[in-house]
Amino acid sequence: MYFKSMFFEDYTIGDKRVTLGRTITETDFVVHAGHTGDFFPHHMDAEWCKTQPFKQRIAHGTMVFSIGIGLTASEINPEAFSRGYDTLRFIKPVFIGDTIHSEITISAKSDAKKPEFGIVTEHVEIINQHGEVVQACDHLLMVKRKQNS
Amino acid sequence: MYFKSMFFEDYTIGDKRVTLGRTITETDFVVHAGHTGDFFPHHMDAEWCKTQPFKQRIAHGTMVFSIGIGLTASEINPEAFSRGYDTLRFIKPVFIGDTIHSEITISAKSDAKKPEFGIVTEHVEIINQHGEVVQACDHLLMVKRKQNS
Amino acid sequence: MYFKSMFFEDYTIGDKRVTLGRTITETDFVVHAGHTGDFFPHHMDAEWCKTQPFKQRIAHGTMVFSIGIGLTASEINPEAFSRGYDTLRFIKPVFIGDTIHSEITISAKSDAKKPEFGIVTEHVEIINQHGEVVQACDHLLMVKRKQNS
Amino acid sequence: MYFKSMFFEDYTIGDKRVTLGRTITETDFVVHAGHTGDFFPHHMDAEWCKTQPFKQRIAHGTMVFSIGIGLTASEINPEAFSRGYDTLRFIKPVFIGDTIHSEITISAKSDAKKPEFGIVTEHVEIINQHGEVVQACDHLLMVKRKQNS
Amino acid sequence: MYFKSMFFEDYTIGDKRVTLGRTITETDFVVHAGHTGDFFPHHMDAEWCKTQPFKQRIAHGTMVFSIGIGLTASEINPEAFSRGYDTLRFIKPVFIGDTIHSEITISAKSDAKKPEFGIVTEHVEIINQHGEVVQACDHLLMVKRKQNS
Amino acid sequence: MYFKSMFFEDYTIGDKRVTLGRTITETDFVVHAGHTGDFFPHHMDAEWCKTQPFKQRIAHGTMVFSIGIGLTASEINPEAFSRGYDTLRFIKPVFIGDTIHSEITISAKSDAKKPEFGIVTEHVEIINQHGEVVQACDHLLMVKRKQNS
Repeated sequence: MYFKSMFFEDYTIGDKRVTLGRTITETDFVVHAGHTGDFFPHHMDAEWCKTQPFKQRIAHGTMVFSIGIGLTASEINPEAFSRGYDTLRFIKPVFIGDTIHSEITISAKSDAKKPEFGIVTEHVEIINQHGEVVQACDHLLMVKRKQNS
Repeated sequence: MYFKSMFFEDYTIGDKRVTLGRTITETDFVVHAGHTGDFFPHHMDAEWCKTQPFKQRIAHGTMVFSIGIGLTASEINPEAFSRGYDTLRFIKPVFIGDTIHSEITISAKSDAKKPEFGIVTEHVEIINQHGEVVQACDHLLMVKRKQNS
Repeated sequence: MYFKSMFFEDYTIGDKRVTLGRTITETDFVVHAGHTGDFFPHHMDAEWCKTQPFKQRIAHGTMVFSIGIGLTASEINPEAFSRGYDTLRFIKPVFIGDTIHSEITISAKSDAKKPEFGIVTEHVEIINQHGEVVQACDHLLMVKRKQNS
Repeated sequence: MYFKSMFFEDYTIGDKRVTLGRTITETDFVVHAGHTGDFFPHHMDAEWCKTQPFKQRIAHGTMVFSIGIGLTASEINPEAFSRGYDTLRFIKPVFIGDTIHSEITISAKSDAKKPEFGIVTEHVEIINQHGEVVQACDHLLMVKRKQNS
Repeated sequence: MYFKSMFFEDYTIGDKRVTLGRTITETDFVVHAGHTGDFFPHHMDAEWCKTQPFKQRIAHGTMVFSIGIGLTASEINPEAFSRGYDTLRFIKPVFIGDTIHSEITISAKSDAKKPEFGIVTEHVEIINQHGEVVQACDHLLMVKRKQNS
Repeated sequence: MYFKSMFFEDYTIGDKRVTLGRTITETDFVVHAGHTGDFFPHHMDAEWCKTQPFKQRIAHGTMVFSIGIGLTASEINPEAFSRGYDTLRFIKPVFIGDTIHSEITISAKSDAKKPEFGIVTEHVEIINQHGEVVQACDHLLMVKRKQNS
């Protein structure tokens, strides 16, 4: 985790990076419930889950998102800040013991309202050990243009 | 936190609910960093932050989102499941000691691909103690239609 | 979790509510030990426990109590506050993987020293997935009387 | 934390021990809320608390009890097990930054149903840095009698 | 955990104490990663570990050390303070579910720079449920001499 | 955090890297006590600490070590593994609110017993916001030699 300056012009559509993996544990379920206050039985009650379609506890959508995005936090670009996320989709459930990693592809570049910035879109896929995309979203990164730095 | 069935037809555009508040503590910063692995100095290094525009540590975007959504987890609708989120925007920073709550408004209803479901859009605003919206997003809820239940 | 005013006169003996369930995980054991500083081998040493009557780690009594009571925290009555608990009994052990819920019955109403309050007794039973009561206690709730509000 | 056998006959009414102290931190509030799922604003919403009589967040009763009892967990008596607690009373609020310790006095000895056991009552007082008792309770300890060992 | 004064002269080479045991859980792995920020796949990615020599996640060296030393924290000697550790060796891996305890032997006594102190060396072995030493180190304790107290 | 192969021959004595900083919070104190079971009043009792030379709580030595080492966990060298640490010294106390970072210098290279490995010594200094070294140690890294790979 270190600083590395990258300007709008330095991003190339199609560039991709792949993170390390991380096994999602029962501990993560309990920590996320306690962190957010969401103790819904889908995540916390193994007996009730046995009566439901997936037969087992499923991860909070916000947890898979937070950890999947956390995995991408390896280099700090001081020329950029996060504007938010578009089209976050919960595609498949994540179960206790699944291992996820994230794949980030530069998918678009566009103008921002402020002329000294551009918007870089990173398409993020969070993928389990079976190669299935469990969540996907578009990260909007506001990045300084070189000429203005 | 209890079960209460609500079908697609039961949702009315414009209906609004307001959650309890919660103070975001330094503990939450440390827990979220440890939960996600994102130890960026923006959230974790008070000395470095003194040299930055906000002069203090700012909350992870994924934490404000996770807690803001967690605050809405009060009633379980067994007829619905979450499809994801659109247009999540990080509008203002959240600092240690800020108190946030969420306001959820039914903002749209539309057809889903599967005819037995409809899509209910909940516009969520996460608001601090000054009444400022710090994050906003649209939650897409897949809800069973009554005639199919 | 929302506010709902209930005065002493609004409580009816025999009224009962049942909470959601929650699976007690190894994580909860570790969190409770770390939270309280009680690292007794009954809760923390799987090898030693194999030599004991229950053959496995058993939950801290204070944890089952805290979580069992926590499960009841769904509605906030601004007219009431907790005076404490009577006759808390540790009836059966709770093991890793057990799922508990709580059942609360209004069991008594009586006068308080201060005439503007009454005492409502809630009998709380914490019950596992086999329907066995693992802990029971009487919660003493000081509740404002209507005529004084 | 070590084993030390003590039989029913070894307990003397009036004997007293005093634990170390521990400062109750904001972290403990957040951990206990997350551990139990009780996110009531009395404990979690500093802004709302400013409008209430105590003007600040107050500790969960179950947390003060769990930590206060945890402080007593120094020696393991293999001849005893806990039957539960009587007359647990929440006497004064505990605030962030308060430092508590526990004082345990053998207050009664009586027969148990099973003749090979006796009941030892430990009166526990949890005391803050001003010398005020914030909680008190009677711990019922089932202890083997010597002649049966 | 209580105070008990011991001066340099009170330590006898060869004296040994043995701590209680503690089972190292998956929770401890997750807590330590989150506490330290070390999310290396050796500790966190069960799938990747299957491709490695040990075939499973292995504990952080700093965690085994911290917990192994934590187990020794039973009595507080107000006449002593820790100078540090020599020759900390990571001898065998610790896996999820292993149970460790520590054995501490007074192995040396020597003069300190300050004449009113002496250095007591405690040789610490952290041992698993198979009797194997998984870590060892020498703890250097600065202890007041009696004649100067 | 990514893989990058470095063989024994690739390490140059005198090479140095500097980590990001991290503010040590009260939360870290509470987490470390709960993780290790060391609730000594030096770390946990603010009132008692007022009577001691430092007048405030001081960090556990094992915590500063674990976090200071954790800060160095940025790149994974699959050709190396940790043999342990030498001469870990606790030089200055770390207080709540201090910000630490680590500086790692390659300080020695030597032969290992197994001829296909060499030993690289990394001298690690953990430094606070005043530029003071609070802990120092020598990390012994077993690294494969190129000719054997």
